[in-house]
Amino acid sequence: MIRWLETAAGTGHGAPEGGWTTAADPGRLHAEGRIARARVEEAREHVAALLGTRPRQVVFTSGGTESANAATWGATRGRSGAVLLADVEHSCVRDAAPRWAPVVRLGVGPTGRIDPGEVEDALRRHDADEPAALVHCQAANHEVGTLQPVAEVVEVARRHGTLVHVDACAAAGHLPLALDDLGADLVSVSAHKLGGPPGIGALVVRRGLRLDPLLVGGEQERARRGGLENVPAILGFGAAAAALVAPGTLEGEAAVARGQTARLLAAATAVDGVGAVGDVEDRVPHIVCVTVEGIEAEPVLLGLDQRGIAAHSGSSCSSESLAPSPVLEAMGVDAERSLRLSVGWSTTDDDVDAFAAAFAEVVTSLRELRT
Amino acid sequence: MIRWLETAAGTGHGAPEGGWTTAADPGRLHAEGRIARARVEEAREHVAALLGTRPRQVVFTSGGTESANAATWGATRGRSGAVLLADVEHSCVRDAAPRWAPVVRLGVGPTGRIDPGEVEDALRRHDADEPAALVHCQAANHEVGTLQPVAEVVEVARRHGTLVHVDACAAAGHLPLALDDLGADLVSVSAHKLGGPPGIGALVVRRGLRLDPLLVGGEQERARRGGLENVPAILGFGAAAAALVAPGTLEGEAAVARGQTARLLAAATAVDGVGAVGDVEDRVPHIVCVTVEGIEAEPVLLGLDQRGIAAHSGSSCSSESLAPSPVLEAMGVDAERSLRLSVGWSTTDDDVDAFAAAFAEVVTSLRELRT
Repeated sequence: MIRWLETAAGTGHGAPEGGWTTAADPGRLHAEGRIARARVEEAREHVAALLGTRPRQVVFTSGGTESANAATWGATRGRSGAVLLADVEHSCVRDAAPRWAPVVRLGVGPTGRIDPGEVEDALRRHDADEPAALVHCQAANHEVGTLQPVAEVVEVARRHGTLVHVDACAAAGHLPLALDDLGADLVSVSAHKLGGPPGIGALVVRRGLRLDPLLVGGEQERARRGGLENVPAILGFGAAAAALVAPGTLEGEAAVARGQTARLLAAATAVDGVGAVGDVEDRVPHIVCVTVEGIEAEPVLLGLDQRGIAAHSGSSCSSESLAPSPVLEAMGVDAERSLRLSVGWSTTDDDVDAFAAAFAEVVTSLRELRT
Repeated sequence: MIRWLETAAGTGHGAPEGGWTTAADPGRLHAEGRIARARVEEAREHVAALLGTRPRQVVFTSGGTESANAATWGATRGRSGAVLLADVEHSCVRDAAPRWAPVVRLGVGPTGRIDPGEVEDALRRHDADEPAALVHCQAANHEVGTLQPVAEVVEVARRHGTLVHVDACAAAGHLPLALDDLGADLVSVSAHKLGGPPGIGALVVRRGLRLDPLLVGGEQERARRGGLENVPAILGFGAAAAALVAPGTLEGEAAVARGQTARLLAAATAVDGVGAVGDVEDRVPHIVCVTVEGIEAEPVLLGLDQRGIAAHSGSSCSSESLAPSPVLEAMGVDAERSLRLSVGWSTTDDDVDAFAAAFAEVVTSLRELRT
């Protein structure tokens, strides 16, 4: 059994070469701490390069959920105006806001897209009263893949002096990002959605923006996030980012993913009564979503699972409750009958073929049971 | 390079045997998700057994800092009374409270011990006005090791209808704990301080206590902590807990640690002008603290580091700022001249000997430089 060196608790440098670095506290003066610090900063450089920002703007968090909660907390300190968001935002964005600010809901079009014109109208109405504190605008939808007009929303918000938080968890690592050029105030990213380990993410804080931390209790991350740094997970995040930053890698993976999801979509919609949801063109390359007429998602998922295929409905964070997806509801889609299909870096063309065969079989046999 | 399977993103069960379980989302219906779920719940059982509570009381968090922040947030929702705490509490406890409640400071004795009588007096004064919302009482101090009268504080608080949060990060895994018997409402624990990985901890929530989560956005952890579970870190936490729960292990490690720290203390205090801080008897077995007359901690730490010894001053979370320790200040100790010495499961008797030789040498040579 492996047990970790208790952080900074050893007397004597007994660690095997390169072995315990990730267990040392990077806040310490001693050799192990300094090595850990150097490796954390190296990882931060890779993550910053992937996101098109400077390393010092990157605050490591425990994941996308913490990032979005912390962004909302920070943006509403000292600003008493409303928070604007659409119901297609991830539940961590939807649920964090009402605790700390009045919330104004934005509508979406049939593919789940936010309208910058509606954001502008809402901000203008609020200016007369009290300027809005924050607009949330995801980079891409996590359930249907639709890209959002982030640059336009950032521009509109800046004119009104309102901060913008971009949930880029579904987009980062799948689309090229240039966050410094984008100019959003706060951006959330999750490592496990781009090939890194779970339990780690980042909140990118715009240069010059002072952020009150949600988790306090230490000067870590330039006093923007308390708690011992999760060194092994940070290094994993850095390694995934470094791999994606290598010339052509992200673009190459995106092209493969786009081809595979297009084939998934074609195979699924070839079955009677199956339709695509979301914008099938203007989307992240790795996610598509379909509705299945007359059959609920759960038996389809179980049937696919029996045939060796791991798919799901709803977002990562709503599947335990099995409640209808608020994202799909906001788009006017029958949420109990939709299925999210995504591919990862390890998905092969054979996997896509296997899905095509299994999906038709499962839907057909479930329909036969019904009649 | 290793990259993780994107959570639930694969089509096709291509994982090597036992290899990708920890990358699957335990909230999913598919086979990989169900395996991950089973292993997470197994880990929860081990952690609960170590802490003397039921698995369903254990909420996994990203660490002790998040747990203490979440405990404070949860306890002050719907309760507008004050939060009582002593300055010897960890910075995450001290810094979280003032954001959400008026804070009443408790004094400590010269070894850093909280006085249950003072807690009672403070609660009584508040009853007349508005009952206090929460008392923080650490199980053991993280810098000097002193045990706190937790059971007495819990009893006093219960009589006044005030919640108690126990920061058990320095004690868990080093002393037997029976949290259900103790009856505290909220208990924070950190995995990396007991042989588990960084980036994972637990908040133990008393049976029947409804807790508003600090991190929202998913139904994970019985709707008490949103965000994808950090499965690999949870399994590491579970493995460390399982090792400690094996008969005699915790007690055996504690006995070794107590012997080693007693020798560290004897070696250090044998040097002229070096004294022990904290309660040298009633303490956790693995931590001792000394003051060095006339010399600041930093050059001592650097001298020890040059001789292969990793020690530190202040708490894990204050070392970056190099500010004097508020814990030691509260005890009336000259904080810039103190040194925390701790041992871990990997510390050998040779390490203790190496410390004894190096410490005397470093202190003597620094004093010679001064004269």
